[in-house]
Amino acid sequence: MTTTLPTWLGRVSRPTLVLDVDRARRNIERMAVKAKAAGVRLRPHFKTHQSATIGGWFREHGATGITVSSVDMARYFAEEGWRDITLAFPVNLRQLDEINDLVRRIDLGLVVDDEETASVLGARLVEPARIWIKVDTGYGRAGIDWSRSKRIARLAAAIDGSGAGSFAGLLAHAGHSYHARGRREILAIHDQTRSRLIELRNWLLAAGVRRCELSIGDTPCCSVADSFEGIDEIRPGNYVFFDLTQLQLGSCEAEDLAVAVACPVVGVYPERNQLVLYGGAIHLSKDSVLDHGTRLFGYLAQRTDNGWGAPDPRLPVSSLSQEHGVVSLEGADADDIQVGDVVLVLPVHSCLTVDLYDEYLTVDGLIRRR
Amino acid sequence: MTTTLPTWLGRVSRPTLVLDVDRARRNIERMAVKAKAAGVRLRPHFKTHQSATIGGWFREHGATGITVSSVDMARYFAEEGWRDITLAFPVNLRQLDEINDLVRRIDLGLVVDDEETASVLGARLVEPARIWIKVDTGYGRAGIDWSRSKRIARLAAAIDGSGAGSFAGLLAHAGHSYHARGRREILAIHDQTRSRLIELRNWLLAAGVRRCELSIGDTPCCSVADSFEGIDEIRPGNYVFFDLTQLQLGSCEAEDLAVAVACPVVGVYPERNQLVLYGGAIHLSKDSVLDHGTRLFGYLAQRTDNGWGAPDPRLPVSSLSQEHGVVSLEGADADDIQVGDVVLVLPVHSCLTVDLYDEYLTVDGLIRRR
Repeated sequence: MTTTLPTWLGRVSRPTLVLDVDRARRNIERMAVKAKAAGVRLRPHFKTHQSATIGGWFREHGATGITVSSVDMARYFAEEGWRDITLAFPVNLRQLDEINDLVRRIDLGLVVDDEETASVLGARLVEPARIWIKVDTGYGRAGIDWSRSKRIARLAAAIDGSGAGSFAGLLAHAGHSYHARGRREILAIHDQTRSRLIELRNWLLAAGVRRCELSIGDTPCCSVADSFEGIDEIRPGNYVFFDLTQLQLGSCEAEDLAVAVACPVVGVYPERNQLVLYGGAIHLSKDSVLDHGTRLFGYLAQRTDNGWGAPDPRLPVSSLSQEHGVVSLEGADADDIQVGDVVLVLPVHSCLTVDLYDEYLTVDGLIRRR
Repeated sequence: MTTTLPTWLGRVSRPTLVLDVDRARRNIERMAVKAKAAGVRLRPHFKTHQSATIGGWFREHGATGITVSSVDMARYFAEEGWRDITLAFPVNLRQLDEINDLVRRIDLGLVVDDEETASVLGARLVEPARIWIKVDTGYGRAGIDWSRSKRIARLAAAIDGSGAGSFAGLLAHAGHSYHARGRREILAIHDQTRSRLIELRNWLLAAGVRRCELSIGDTPCCSVADSFEGIDEIRPGNYVFFDLTQLQLGSCEAEDLAVAVACPVVGVYPERNQLVLYGGAIHLSKDSVLDHGTRLFGYLAQRTDNGWGAPDPRLPVSSLSQEHGVVSLEGADADDIQVGDVVLVLPVHSCLTVDLYDEYLTVDGLIRRR
C-alpha cells in the first residue's frame, strides 16, 4: 500500500463498510439524467442501500416512487416518508396482515403471477393496490413465461375482477443479464426483454385489456442501454454502489465503485504469497465471481489520498472462512503490507455485502442502514 | 409435503431460523462423551451458535473453557459468565484496547504467528495471557508452516520473554478436512495433523521449550476420529448443529442436522419444475456445495410430525438471489406444494446461516443469539 491511511479510515478496528458519498451521488444522478432523457420513469430499487439518508439523495434527483424487495423494507421506507412503493417480490400470503398495514398508508404496488394469490388478495386486501403481473422474459426465476399470453390475459382479468385493486401492467426482471459476457450481450438481452414485453402488451390490448404499463429492472441493462422505447418504468438498484460483478459485466467503470469493506490485516505470509484479513464470509458475503477462470471473493483496492481507486489485480481475495479472508499476492510485494494495516476490499456483490452491516462509514461520519 | 405443519412452525411468516433442541443437545453430549473417553480436553468453539442459552447446554456436559473467533464474541461470552476463553483468531492489533479489557476480566488465550505481534503484546498487554502459536499443518490459511521448527522455537522464546504471558503451545486448524472426500480422507488428515504437531512438539521440547500443549480444531476430524493420542485439547464447533457440508463429508448423519430455515413458498411453477421461496442469500448465506457435480445452496427437508427429517434429494435449492430461493423439482410433484406453504431448508454451512439471525425458533419458543 503506497499511501498512508486517510484520517477517516484511521480508526477502523474491525471489518467496516465504507461508502464514497460522491461516487454514490454521481451514480444516482447519472441514472436519473439518463431516465429523464429517455423519457422513462425511474423507480429506483432501494434493496441495495436500505438507508433513509441515501434514499434522500434519490429524492433530490426527482425520485418519488421506489421499489423494495421485502415487506420489512417497504415498512421502513414508508415510515421514512415514501408514499409510493412497489414491492417487487411475489406476494407472500403469510404477510397479508403486514401488507394490509402498508396498503392503508401508502400507494402500494404488488406483484403476482398466479390466480390463487390474486383471488386471496381480492378477498383480504383492505384497500386497493396496483397489481403487476410478474412476467418471465428469459431469466427463469419467478413469473409467468412471456409466451403464455392467454394465461396472462386471464390473470389480468382476474385481478381487475378481484377487488384487490387494478391491473397495472407487466413487470419483468432480466436477471440473466448477470450471466452476460460484456455490453453487447447485455444489450441483446435488453432488446429481447423489451420486444417480448411490447409484443405481449400489444396482444393484451388487442384482447381487451384496457391499460398495461411495462416495468423492467436490472442494473446491467439499465446502465448499458440508452433506449427504453416502449417501456414505462425502470427499477434498477445496484447502480447506486455497483460492485466487481457489474465492473466485470461492463455496467460501470472502476471509478463508480462506491462501497468497500475496510479490513485489518492480521497475517502476512510472504512464504506462501498470502495475507490474512480480519474480514470473512460474514463481512463480505460468500458471493464470488469468476475472473479469468479463477473464483474470487473480492479485490483489494488501490489506495488514493482520501479513499480508493481501481481493483488491484495483484491482490484478489481468494478464499473466505467465517471471519478470515485470504488474499493471494499475485506479484504484489508482501513487504508493502504489515500486520495492523487496514486494506479496502471491493465486494463482488454490494447488495449482499451491505446487508451485513447496520451502518456506512463515510468521510463525514456514519450513515445508518435500517 | 406429506404432513401438515406442526403448530410451532405454523406462525412462520418470513425466513426463520429453526432449531431442533434435542438434536443439538445430543450432538453436544456425544462430543463431550467422546472427548472424555479419549482423555482429551474439549474446548468447544462457540462461533457456530453464538448463544448464551446454547452455551449453557455445553456447561451441563462439563465445558468450562470455550473457543471464539472474534473479540466481540469473547466479550459477549465473558459477560455471560465464561471465565476461560481462547480467541482462536490471529491477534488483531487494532483491537488491543478491547483485548486488554478482556484480559483484565478472564483467563484469555490468544493466538500469534509472528514476532512483531508478540512484541507488541509484550509491550501493551496489561495482564498476562496464554499465548498459542498458530501452526499451519497443511490447510494454508494462517499460521507458520509446521516444518519451520526453528522459527517456531524462536517465536515461543520471544513470547516467554515478551512479558505478554506464557507460551501455551501449538494451535492448529486442519480446515483442509473440509475438502476431503469421505471419512477415510478425513482420518488421514487427522493422523497427519497429529503426527506433524507431535513431531514439532518433541523437537521444541528437545530444544529447551519447557511446556507445549497441542490444540486442534475442526469438526470433520473431531467427529470422525476416536483417537486423539498426543493431543491435549480439541476445539470443534460446527458439530452442535452440523449441516449439509458435514453430512456430505461423513461427519454426521441426517438425523444430527439441528438447524433449518423455515421459508414461505411464494411461487410454484410446474411448467419449469420449480418453486420460488421467500428465502435468499441474506437468509441462507451464499455458501454452496457440489453434489454429484451440481452446485446447490441447500436441500428442502422431508417433514416429520414435529420437525424435519433427511434432506429430500428431489428438492435442491438450485440458486439464490438476495431474497429469492429457487428450488428445482427433481422428480418431486409440484402439486404437493402450494403458494403459502412453509418449507424447511437445510443449510449448506450452518455457521454462516446462523450468523444472519438474532434468534432461533424452537418448539418451546425463541432462543436469543448475541
